[in-house]
Amino acid sequence: MARRRTTLKDVAEEVGVHTSTVSRALNPETRHFIRPEVAERILAVSERLNYRPNAAAYSLRTNKTRIIGVVIPDIANPVFPPIIRGIEDVLSERGYLAILVNSEPHNARHGAVLDALQSRGVDGLIMASLELGDSIIRGMIDDGLPAVTVNRRAEDADVPSVTNDEDQGMRLILEHLKALGHTRVANLAGPQSISTGKERFEAFRRHARAMGFDTSEDLVVFSQRLNEAEGERCAAELLDALSGFTAIVASNDRLAVGAISLLRRRGIACPAEMSVTGFNDMPMVDRFEPPLTTVRVQQYEVGRLAASMLMKRLDGGELEPSEEHIVVPVELVVRASTARVR
Amino acid sequence: MARRRTTLKDVAEEVGVHTSTVSRALNPETRHFIRPEVAERILAVSERLNYRPNAAAYSLRTNKTRIIGVVIPDIANPVFPPIIRGIEDVLSERGYLAILVNSEPHNARHGAVLDALQSRGVDGLIMASLELGDSIIRGMIDDGLPAVTVNRRAEDADVPSVTNDEDQGMRLILEHLKALGHTRVANLAGPQSISTGKERFEAFRRHARAMGFDTSEDLVVFSQRLNEAEGERCAAELLDALSGFTAIVASNDRLAVGAISLLRRRGIACPAEMSVTGFNDMPMVDRFEPPLTTVRVQQYEVGRLAASMLMKRLDGGELEPSEEHIVVPVELVVRASTARVR
Repeated sequence: MARRRTTLKDVAEEVGVHTSTVSRALNPETRHFIRPEVAERILAVSERLNYRPNAAAYSLRTNKTRIIGVVIPDIANPVFPPIIRGIEDVLSERGYLAILVNSEPHNARHGAVLDALQSRGVDGLIMASLELGDSIIRGMIDDGLPAVTVNRRAEDADVPSVTNDEDQGMRLILEHLKALGHTRVANLAGPQSISTGKERFEAFRRHARAMGFDTSEDLVVFSQRLNEAEGERCAAELLDALSGFTAIVASNDRLAVGAISLLRRRGIACPAEMSVTGFNDMPMVDRFEPPLTTVRVQQYEVGRLAASMLMKRLDGGELEPSEEHIVVPVELVVRASTARVR
Repeated sequence: MARRRTTLKDVAEEVGVHTSTVSRALNPETRHFIRPEVAERILAVSERLNYRPNAAAYSLRTNKTRIIGVVIPDIANPVFPPIIRGIEDVLSERGYLAILVNSEPHNARHGAVLDALQSRGVDGLIMASLELGDSIIRGMIDDGLPAVTVNRRAEDADVPSVTNDEDQGMRLILEHLKALGHTRVANLAGPQSISTGKERFEAFRRHARAMGFDTSEDLVVFSQRLNEAEGERCAAELLDALSGFTAIVASNDRLAVGAISLLRRRGIACPAEMSVTGFNDMPMVDRFEPPLTTVRVQQYEVGRLAASMLMKRLDGGELEPSEEHIVVPVELVVRASTARVR
């Protein structure tokens, strides 16, 4: 099963020129060194022989692969596909290929995966999978690998990021609940080790206090993961410990969806007896029962911005301080999982 | 922003040995050629200097990258994440890294993406993104690149595949509808250019005839894509052209979800006035309104089997004829989108 592919030498011999001539002719940046009629013959022969530049040789020569690694924490989270489309659209305009790697920071193999990406020579990295205290991405940037984060950010202000306006989102949610007459609202918070979890929790606390909600400490439960099972577990914990709250504000849509399942199992009507809100507006939440009231983040746009930021870095451009951390506006989407307090 | 990484030479100089000694010591297969105390020093220094083997150099030397390309047609389709997890679990046991590429056969850049993967030297390919007449994967296998398909298959019997039992699935759906008293059932079929669409459509026709359903030609509509928007469009087309049918059998869950949305917009109650079935049992369809009756395919297991098949190929093993095309059993999951005919 040995792979015998057409080499530069095969093309050179067929045309009757030196391999370096073929190499120059095939590179748009050096083609003008070659006489046009020769360049044309070389291109025609390359195509006929189905010559593909050997990427490993190209990579050793130029130290570039034109591959960008995109690391996401959980491919099963529907919020990522639109972000990835945004990234891919920008990269493909620039002749780059996105390769996706699915890896969570708390997984044992996370460091190994990132090592492998780096040693296999991606030109840059877009990280959606990181924790606040993460030293891995910092280390990669120190090694000279251009990297940006998307959706989440690092604690370290030197790591460029594109994130959503978590503060604005939480404020919109709480204003909506207040207008519906809610005064005692529980927070199903995300893991505090990641920026979205921490910032949404802090925004909840700050705005709840400012708007005069009941801000008892016990109205908060922290999830360990951002998935439906944790949403169920945490909602059960809240219901077992407390009573008298009329809404659950979840840190993301998957937690909210889990909370709604748990309410249904316990015979608590959503939204009649308990309002529930999400965050992200991931695809499909408009089709759930009940359709979810949530905060719409501009997933595709966030992906585009992160890829554009990385491309600018790769072009050797320094980012202006104002470009290093882009916060994208969000909006409230009111559906049927929230209702006026009875 | 030049990347200065520790080289083999740095390690050799630090230890005071030749680079070839370092190279042998770091390779478990050749380590026994080196005196144990020297090998140990080399390993310690490599670690201290944070030496990572240069993948491009390794790749030129061995013609292996330990990277497997996984090509999926649409990362937004929730059926793929569990398949990918199955693939990743097998690959990581073997020290391979999966890189995912999101590309549909009808996209202009599909061929270029696959060329890029091949020229950048993946060791093998798992393709979920292909059409029946696809010559691309055939060409790659002819070039000596080990490849298998997952979820879909090529027309060409030489391309190994792991797929679901489409025939059994359609039979189970139709038996279920027959037991509920349905006799006139429409088929919202998938694109006939891909194996799942074609095989599910043919199975529908065959079993519908055998079970005595009305098999008028006009009870079939073909979708162009496998998404919700096409499900809505095709359901509208059926309703505008026909009447008197009591169920819609969709080729996959996303089409079914789209059909249900269209029914709701037209004020047709599902399942009271119209039953709808899906295929795949993708995550979340149990939470939709109404929860979807569908065929459960073993997504994770299908991914594992495809990756194991590819690993066997990479180990140089020839597959037995019985191993070249694995068809995985499916089961019916009855939820609330189907009901007895009134």
